[in-house]
Amino acid sequence: MASVVHVELGERRYPIAVGRGDIERLGEWWRRAGLGRRALVVTDSNVGPLYGAPVRDQLESIGVTTAVATVPAGEASKTIERWAELQYAAVEAGLDRSSVIVALGGGVVGDLAGFAAATFLRGIRYAQVPTTLLAMVDSSVGGKTGVDLRCGKNLVGAFHQPSLVVADPDVLRTLAAREYRAGMAEVIKYGVILDAALFERLEADAARLTDPLWAALDEVIADCCRLKAEVVAADEREGGLRAILNFGHTLGHALEAATGYERLLHGEAVAIGMVYAAELSVRRAGLSPTERDRLVRLLRAAGLPVSASGLGVEWAQVVAAMSLDKKAAGRVPRFVLAEAIGRVRHGIEVPPEVLKEVWDAIAE
Amino acid sequence: MASVVHVELGERRYPIAVGRGDIERLGEWWRRAGLGRRALVVTDSNVGPLYGAPVRDQLESIGVTTAVATVPAGEASKTIERWAELQYAAVEAGLDRSSVIVALGGGVVGDLAGFAAATFLRGIRYAQVPTTLLAMVDSSVGGKTGVDLRCGKNLVGAFHQPSLVVADPDVLRTLAAREYRAGMAEVIKYGVILDAALFERLEADAARLTDPLWAALDEVIADCCRLKAEVVAADEREGGLRAILNFGHTLGHALEAATGYERLLHGEAVAIGMVYAAELSVRRAGLSPTERDRLVRLLRAAGLPVSASGLGVEWAQVVAAMSLDKKAAGRVPRFVLAEAIGRVRHGIEVPPEVLKEVWDAIAE
Repeated sequence: MASVVHVELGERRYPIAVGRGDIERLGEWWRRAGLGRRALVVTDSNVGPLYGAPVRDQLESIGVTTAVATVPAGEASKTIERWAELQYAAVEAGLDRSSVIVALGGGVVGDLAGFAAATFLRGIRYAQVPTTLLAMVDSSVGGKTGVDLRCGKNLVGAFHQPSLVVADPDVLRTLAAREYRAGMAEVIKYGVILDAALFERLEADAARLTDPLWAALDEVIADCCRLKAEVVAADEREGGLRAILNFGHTLGHALEAATGYERLLHGEAVAIGMVYAAELSVRRAGLSPTERDRLVRLLRAAGLPVSASGLGVEWAQVVAAMSLDKKAAGRVPRFVLAEAIGRVRHGIEVPPEVLKEVWDAIAE
Repeated sequence: MASVVHVELGERRYPIAVGRGDIERLGEWWRRAGLGRRALVVTDSNVGPLYGAPVRDQLESIGVTTAVATVPAGEASKTIERWAELQYAAVEAGLDRSSVIVALGGGVVGDLAGFAAATFLRGIRYAQVPTTLLAMVDSSVGGKTGVDLRCGKNLVGAFHQPSLVVADPDVLRTLAAREYRAGMAEVIKYGVILDAALFERLEADAARLTDPLWAALDEVIADCCRLKAEVVAADEREGGLRAILNFGHTLGHALEAATGYERLLHGEAVAIGMVYAAELSVRRAGLSPTERDRLVRLLRAAGLPVSASGLGVEWAQVVAAMSLDKKAAGRVPRFVLAEAIGRVRHGIEVPPEVLKEVWDAIAE
């Protein structure tokens, strides 16, 4: 049976169902959430062939007229042009204000389809059916939608909360192993920033972290959703607390940018970024070296990179990329640092010489 | 001295300043509203040469770094492509989350620039400096932003409230007379739907309705903003009450569509639509023929069309266009009808034979 996490956003409260086989119960969740009679399923060329038909069948079985739009798999689809195509697809599918867009796929599909829903007829509802571990624990919760510009990622978008999220860990069996491992980086992140018990549980089952058949996976995913949902409910528009979700992301984003978004998956970059943040935390936030080492060990167990060496990235590139980060206030990079496993502070400025010194340590 | 109308939307409360010469006090209003240190002024090829420099000077004079983006004047600029260009212009202007987009122009610029602000970095603030009567009393109040698709108007957009509106009636001296008259249609509409006293005041000064130097214009504009602001505050997302603002618009939109958006200005189409709605109101909502005649007389005094004859529009085209109206629930057109001058009801279905009969009357 599925766990249900509720994201508490007043009128825009919505359920996240997490359970093996739940994709076959989508119709039931749809009805419970009171969603509309007409839908456009947005998916990609990897996921569509695997799960497009079952999702469509589920919806048609409860009388929802369903069209499907498929975009090429990959970040390159997160563009204004694809988003514009989806607006036309929504018109062709006959969507009206009571209709629903379904995002069936990973983070790219979720961001793209969510933004399409945010803007079609000035905003219609959407449901997320995430098919990657990263999307389940991160991008499908919180209502951030958007596309990239040629000059930067996620520069255009909207905050638009879904009306339903159905996360079925069974679909992770068909996910590429590397994608699965990258998603686990964000799971570990939740342990570091908010939940020492979750972190310890991951440590206790460290040998299973790369296995999508891990029995505890449902509960771990539900825990992550609950943690993110609490943060989002407290700070929907990223005024403060929500920043802690960016632990490991300042350097992570910089590494992704410096390597042209091709060499590292997001979760891999975040893993390296977390090692960097942990090292900064030891120097500037009182994290014990023992706890830093526990984090590095857990990331390794999850099959994730823990060093920037060999990436061929220069410090100058990192500096440039961090200064362009849109969260930077007045162009000075600020960091989320850990005081202990399960407890972080955000908005901490770190002197440039310390940033450089720690970079040298993790890049050597 | 300017009137200030406050739109009461909780945290998103914002002021509308209405006063002759207020464009020269934009810097002051900007400071009072606590707006940012960096701005992108979006304007068009008609308005930019007239008011681009004063607005920029005002902002620079209070230390706001200001860039200007100019789009070609006209509805044809309300496209996804222009909106995308503005996203890139915002990047080039160095806008960050604390920056502000200024919409300097009529409804097209307001909708386009507002939508650009709604989506850049998932939403930054914007200020409206409307330069047409229509934009002052209608589109600059209420937070509807968006662009057209090739298959329909305003199909893509967002609800995004401005942080400041500065309406300076002095700029209307440079507005084309026909545009000015078309804007007056919406002014008259407010009298019909909400304010019999406003309607009577317009009747009393009927000879001045086409004159932008009319001394009472400031107050009339402020009254219209106040009326719209009250409606919007009660129903931001168009669940119910806000529908009354569409008095005259069901047929109006259909006529605009049927004439290819070239022959009639929006206000002119609404004027004809109001005559149509008034005639329907006589038959279905108890409006007295005397009051209907008062409306027709006032529209004529404002130099507005009151008949569809000579447009070359067939009933079949009107039916098709009305069925496509995105506000239609289940494809049955619903109308806002007047019970008396100053009092309307919304969501009234009218039998097709009555619709046709009244069309024949106003199109003959």
